[in-house]
Amino acid sequence: MLVTRTESFSAAHRLHSAYLSEQENKELYGKCNHHNGHGHNYKVSITVEGPVDETTGMVINLVELKECIWKYALDGLDHRNIDKDIHYFERGIPSTAENVARYIWDQLVSHIPAPARLYEVELHETDKNYVIYRGS
Amino acid sequence: MLVTRTESFSAAHRLHSAYLSEQENKELYGKCNHHNGHGHNYKVSITVEGPVDETTGMVINLVELKECIWKYALDGLDHRNIDKDIHYFERGIPSTAENVARYIWDQLVSHIPAPARLYEVELHETDKNYVIYRGS
Amino acid sequence: MLVTRTESFSAAHRLHSAYLSEQENKELYGKCNHHNGHGHNYKVSITVEGPVDETTGMVINLVELKECIWKYALDGLDHRNIDKDIHYFERGIPSTAENVARYIWDQLVSHIPAPARLYEVELHETDKNYVIYRGS
Amino acid sequence: MLVTRTESFSAAHRLHSAYLSEQENKELYGKCNHHNGHGHNYKVSITVEGPVDETTGMVINLVELKECIWKYALDGLDHRNIDKDIHYFERGIPSTAENVARYIWDQLVSHIPAPARLYEVELHETDKNYVIYRGS
Amino acid sequence: MLVTRTESFSAAHRLHSAYLSEQENKELYGKCNHHNGHGHNYKVSITVEGPVDETTGMVINLVELKECIWKYALDGLDHRNIDKDIHYFERGIPSTAENVARYIWDQLVSHIPAPARLYEVELHETDKNYVIYRGS
Amino acid sequence: MLVTRTESFSAAHRLHSAYLSEQENKELYGKCNHHNGHGHNYKVSITVEGPVDETTGMVINLVELKECIWKYALDGLDHRNIDKDIHYFERGIPSTAENVARYIWDQLVSHIPAPARLYEVELHETDKNYVIYRGS
Repeated sequence: MLVTRTESFSAAHRLHSAYLSEQENKELYGKCNHHNGHGHNYKVSITVEGPVDETTGMVINLVELKECIWKYALDGLDHRNIDKDIHYFERGIPSTAENVARYIWDQLVSHIPAPARLYEVELHETDKNYVIYRGS
Repeated sequence: MLVTRTESFSAAHRLHSAYLSEQENKELYGKCNHHNGHGHNYKVSITVEGPVDETTGMVINLVELKECIWKYALDGLDHRNIDKDIHYFERGIPSTAENVARYIWDQLVSHIPAPARLYEVELHETDKNYVIYRGS
Repeated sequence: MLVTRTESFSAAHRLHSAYLSEQENKELYGKCNHHNGHGHNYKVSITVEGPVDETTGMVINLVELKECIWKYALDGLDHRNIDKDIHYFERGIPSTAENVARYIWDQLVSHIPAPARLYEVELHETDKNYVIYRGS
Repeated sequence: MLVTRTESFSAAHRLHSAYLSEQENKELYGKCNHHNGHGHNYKVSITVEGPVDETTGMVINLVELKECIWKYALDGLDHRNIDKDIHYFERGIPSTAENVARYIWDQLVSHIPAPARLYEVELHETDKNYVIYRGS
Repeated sequence: MLVTRTESFSAAHRLHSAYLSEQENKELYGKCNHHNGHGHNYKVSITVEGPVDETTGMVINLVELKECIWKYALDGLDHRNIDKDIHYFERGIPSTAENVARYIWDQLVSHIPAPARLYEVELHETDKNYVIYRGS
Repeated sequence: MLVTRTESFSAAHRLHSAYLSEQENKELYGKCNHHNGHGHNYKVSITVEGPVDETTGMVINLVELKECIWKYALDGLDHRNIDKDIHYFERGIPSTAENVARYIWDQLVSHIPAPARLYEVELHETDKNYVIYRGS
């Protein structure tokens, strides 16, 4: 059984890689590389997998799952600038949807109460683009 | 090839487990345990898997799939109280999304016309919460 | 300038009018009259009208508007049975979308901080049905 | 007859008013005042009003309307920082949804080809908040 | 009080005006003029206005409204080719969203049961384009 | 890591199989077999799978993916009649969602830049029906 909770957060960012020159960044990321940044209403769906507890009828208490998502991942991202306010991205790692999804996975994976376990992070940057990460 | 049909139904329910005390029910389910119940517009996506028939170009006729979903599962749930009107839940099994998804699976699994077979029941309780069940 | 805030609540209800016989209720409301009730994820959009304050750039602080909507209207409706838990509907007034929208209007109209004023209550019972009330 | 075209843009901003102290900004705007800013996928619906041309069956050619919306309003906002990249907001006018909607109105109002005329700017900052401006 | 019912229909059409030359049609309508046509999932929201009947709590019975919408307007449009199957458009009137909305209005306006009256037809051709018609 | 891009196209079609008689076509496809055809706003989500390039933070450049989707698949489908304008379907293969998804897969599979590879084509014919194809 898979259980999913969807939350939203609003953040600013700019695509820029420390491993590329100014010119390469501009060519690769185009308008997403614009100096003063832009932003998104990100939508993130966190899916956990586990057996249904026959007493409670639940894989996980959704109230707990929501609190866990906010405490360990979204409180630091919501109404923030991903590149400037999140330590992980300060090193120059580009804040692509792929990397933000991996960051959220890493923040949550050890905090999902057993026997449930983190199964998938689905991150929507816009209505037209999303990524899915299931761990490495 | 996977083929999915999405339908909606409106039902009342209350989260309450016969295996827990009044106090434990209140603590576990919070406002979802409120005595007079509440309700949802449930959205259910039924996915079947199978080969494409080269003559018809179909895995399954969607008109038949829709009729099957309503006849065996949703006619009994729509505009009903899940806990009071569905025999399966009268026993005190809590009507969580997990258990409702399993109920829908059990109602449908033997009625999908071969060679198609039931692959997945995805049940949305609200825009933010859903579960996926693929059988045990 | 119009400013709108959308919130959701989940509630049970049953369409039944104290002014009609059992038979008339059954004929008029059909499956919505079923004895044990059903429920919805209601979506309500509250619109206020007013001038833009040039210092703050706002008609109304959305945080205040959200608190006002919950305190005076939705806290009493969410995860409740409208017919049984709301005094206004206990009298046998049918809990149609029209009457629920008027109830929400009446709860909010005197609590919107001036110079903003309540302009419209839009209440969605399902994705396909909604009503708009702008006061009498 | 009213004709509406919806477009989206992604932008960063921060709520901060030049007419308020640091402390007042913090209290009024809360997390929206955070120093490094945040961002949104804005959705804007531009409505024009006019008679239907009996030869073309149109109030306005939607291809022209889309080009007009981008040329005069959205090219400057999309993938930009509203406060830093738009001259109008550099003066310290807070980039609330109300003020951004007025800015878009002002950019478009003289460019809608007659006999159609600009009727309404509806600007969604998130799925839950939007403003409507119809001119002063 | 305004009450709205939303329905969908799938139809083929081609933009082509009998009042224009082949060349003018091509220039005006672009890809929408392509000879073999294209199609849409149209979404139409029919709004009626009226007083709330205090006995029933309704402006109009939504079941009746839905039947009326299908009987007088959508049965003829759904899974049809608007230009070839609807007599009104056979004359060469271009099947723009504006003209289809007027057609739907004309089909419905005399059939809404009093004291309710037709208030508005909102027709969405795609997620990005819609028109609103309130009668002439 | 999976990366998905969603695009839309509007097309006309008619369900009709060259392997069936007129009568069998009518019985099998019902209103979808109507002679003059109908149409849809199709929504297609293309998912590619691959490793994240640590320099760019991307599995695939979404600008490239979008161009690839349009160049090899959607330019030929958008604002067209699938049965009459696409060579693959002229042979009498019925243009069911299943077959259109396979057609899109076949058009794209060899054009996704390595090391990314095509993982899934999800094709929505309406809000209620979709198919998923992952290759044979």
